[in-house]
Amino acid sequence: MRLIRSLLFAPANRREMLEKFPRYPADAVAIDLEDGTPESEKAAARDQLPDIVAYLREQQLKSILLIRTNGPGSPHFKADITVALRASVDGIIVPKLETAAELAAFEGATPIIGIIETARGVANVEVLADQQRDRLAALAFGAEDFITDIGGRRTVDGLEVLYARSRVVLGARLSGLQVLDQVFTMIRDDAAFRRDADIGRQLGYGGKMCITPRQVELANEAFSPSAEEVDRSRRLLQAYEASQADGLGVIEFEGSMVDEPLLKRARAILRLFGVL
Amino acid sequence: MRLIRSLLFAPANRREMLEKFPRYPADAVAIDLEDGTPESEKAAARDQLPDIVAYLREQQLKSILLIRTNGPGSPHFKADITVALRASVDGIIVPKLETAAELAAFEGATPIIGIIETARGVANVEVLADQQRDRLAALAFGAEDFITDIGGRRTVDGLEVLYARSRVVLGARLSGLQVLDQVFTMIRDDAAFRRDADIGRQLGYGGKMCITPRQVELANEAFSPSAEEVDRSRRLLQAYEASQADGLGVIEFEGSMVDEPLLKRARAILRLFGVL
Amino acid sequence: MRLIRSLLFAPANRREMLEKFPRYPADAVAIDLEDGTPESEKAAARDQLPDIVAYLREQQLKSILLIRTNGPGSPHFKADITVALRASVDGIIVPKLETAAELAAFEGATPIIGIIETARGVANVEVLADQQRDRLAALAFGAEDFITDIGGRRTVDGLEVLYARSRVVLGARLSGLQVLDQVFTMIRDDAAFRRDADIGRQLGYGGKMCITPRQVELANEAFSPSAEEVDRSRRLLQAYEASQADGLGVIEFEGSMVDEPLLKRARAILRLFGVL
Repeated sequence: MRLIRSLLFAPANRREMLEKFPRYPADAVAIDLEDGTPESEKAAARDQLPDIVAYLREQQLKSILLIRTNGPGSPHFKADITVALRASVDGIIVPKLETAAELAAFEGATPIIGIIETARGVANVEVLADQQRDRLAALAFGAEDFITDIGGRRTVDGLEVLYARSRVVLGARLSGLQVLDQVFTMIRDDAAFRRDADIGRQLGYGGKMCITPRQVELANEAFSPSAEEVDRSRRLLQAYEASQADGLGVIEFEGSMVDEPLLKRARAILRLFGVL
Repeated sequence: MRLIRSLLFAPANRREMLEKFPRYPADAVAIDLEDGTPESEKAAARDQLPDIVAYLREQQLKSILLIRTNGPGSPHFKADITVALRASVDGIIVPKLETAAELAAFEGATPIIGIIETARGVANVEVLADQQRDRLAALAFGAEDFITDIGGRRTVDGLEVLYARSRVVLGARLSGLQVLDQVFTMIRDDAAFRRDADIGRQLGYGGKMCITPRQVELANEAFSPSAEEVDRSRRLLQAYEASQADGLGVIEFEGSMVDEPLLKRARAILRLFGVL
Repeated sequence: MRLIRSLLFAPANRREMLEKFPRYPADAVAIDLEDGTPESEKAAARDQLPDIVAYLREQQLKSILLIRTNGPGSPHFKADITVALRASVDGIIVPKLETAAELAAFEGATPIIGIIETARGVANVEVLADQQRDRLAALAFGAEDFITDIGGRRTVDGLEVLYARSRVVLGARLSGLQVLDQVFTMIRDDAAFRRDADIGRQLGYGGKMCITPRQVELANEAFSPSAEEVDRSRRLLQAYEASQADGLGVIEFEGSMVDEPLLKRARAILRLFGVL
């Protein structure tokens, strides 16, 4: 699956919102049968899925197109999967994923993105990712559900989820998966979103789940190298190459000692930017 | 076992302190044979246990009544258990708990609260909680002993124990146990206690170990929903119900996007407050 | 192995730097065949190892003398080990250590310091330390390589590595190993180095990897008890002994409630300082 910096959700029962997906620069979009769709509308929304998927394909949607089913513990799960697997989508998002066994229902090659957002899911994340690495394209961390499950409270700084958020990245990366950061619910506060996204990127997340089009723009920015980063990476590599010709393996660059790991990061930034 | 927001310790050799237990609004109180009682007094304190327990029962103590034994590695452990199991208490606190095997000595149905406060205990917490979920009523995290065991230093902010403190909550919650937060040693600083307790609650702790009656009051406050929280939760649920009638699964409420996990938290707050 | 507060690296191909090792108060020094030595110079640097080791021994170097080989995944690893095992050094540093099996190549009694600095290494750290506790003298945590491996970004505060950095201490301490904190790359900023070292010590690290002689001085300071700490520890123990004579197991000392864990820490500080 292509790299996802932004993954935008919209409720499966809000046709007028889903039809706008092609307007947004989201790397991926998801038709949400789970929390976004109220219980009483879930069955009807599921029935209309093939139609809205067909519509979005006709519009030549550029984003990766995904469906979020209800969780494996939900009575809707089986019916959701059946519809989702028949739809012409690029992958399926399974929320509240806790064990490898819960993905057994998925035959075939449809890529799956699992959201780890319960105590059990976090406790199993390494094993789950390892056993399902062929089926999984990515993992995501769901802070709101996790903290609800564990009985805590969310703060803007997020220290209360730092352990789980760090562990999900590690579990995903160990199995070579993409990994998407938590939703940020304060939808009117760009600065706070940026801080949250920055922490996500620092931790190793490659993108972020979004709940408004504005968040998509901010996430794309946060998970792309800035012009300044690209520039710095270029200069660093040049300086390093020059000094390597002199037999030096370590150089000082703008106040920091630089060797292999920092060079790798600079190369990764340029690669991401399409320069290398 | 009833929910514990505050658990107050007093040394088993300080009769005058133990007799005051009925005055305090602690959800639980513990007669401490371990660190609170000096080595030279432990045997005598143990002998006097039945007497002080009888006294507290006569006084119709409302708090859950507990005994803290010495740790499984201590020469006092066996004798402590024998006395504790015969006493008419509501449960036994085992400090420095590290393995499931250490609880094998406890036959019968007395509920146990295990304190996880060593490197080994933290490393085993998930397995320990899982294997002993029937015997255990709760786990607690002991930051002072943990950081001593691991060779670190305590700070007020507590970043040095964030990993262990987060992991103990997860281990306890996975097995459906109550979980009690670390002691805060700076007994004259209410504001710092409140900050520490708030972090505990954010992480998912349901209550806190206390070493002064003042801390009991503060812990009861910190681990109960505030009037403002209750009010906000009520309004949020009302707003959500109204919009669900309109077929919406997600609403904006005071600047935040709200769906299932936030609703669950609001309901949990009202339930804790006895409103739902 | 003696306690290491500071471990200074210098590139194996920079003879003029290696010859200065005896001038510095580093508890340990390492001749670096890995990242400090560019690819094109590694073979030559390896050939010159016996000679520089002999020189340093003649100079009666007081520091523990170590060689850092290339990592187990490198084509240089075998040749590096062969040379390192024959050299008269006090131990070998293996970077990018990930599994116990990777140390199978080391027969004999040469102590090994393993650097945990990949996602895989962090995920295996407890098992690795446990299985290789006889071969290992210490573990170290490499933040720069770890964050590169996991795809994140480094910050001065280091929240992005708090999980891994905390877990490596725990893994090492469980097996009774020394544990050395991450390199700090901003070599001109003493205050930032001190903050980073302080966090390391709070977490339980006993020393720090250094890349300049200046950092060695700062690390020695940060990982030794300060005069004020020693003084406070002395007074605390005196106050405690006095009150124990009065049958008290817990005392208030300068605003904090003090019992066993805090006493143990005070004793450890005095022992480290050579007073107890």
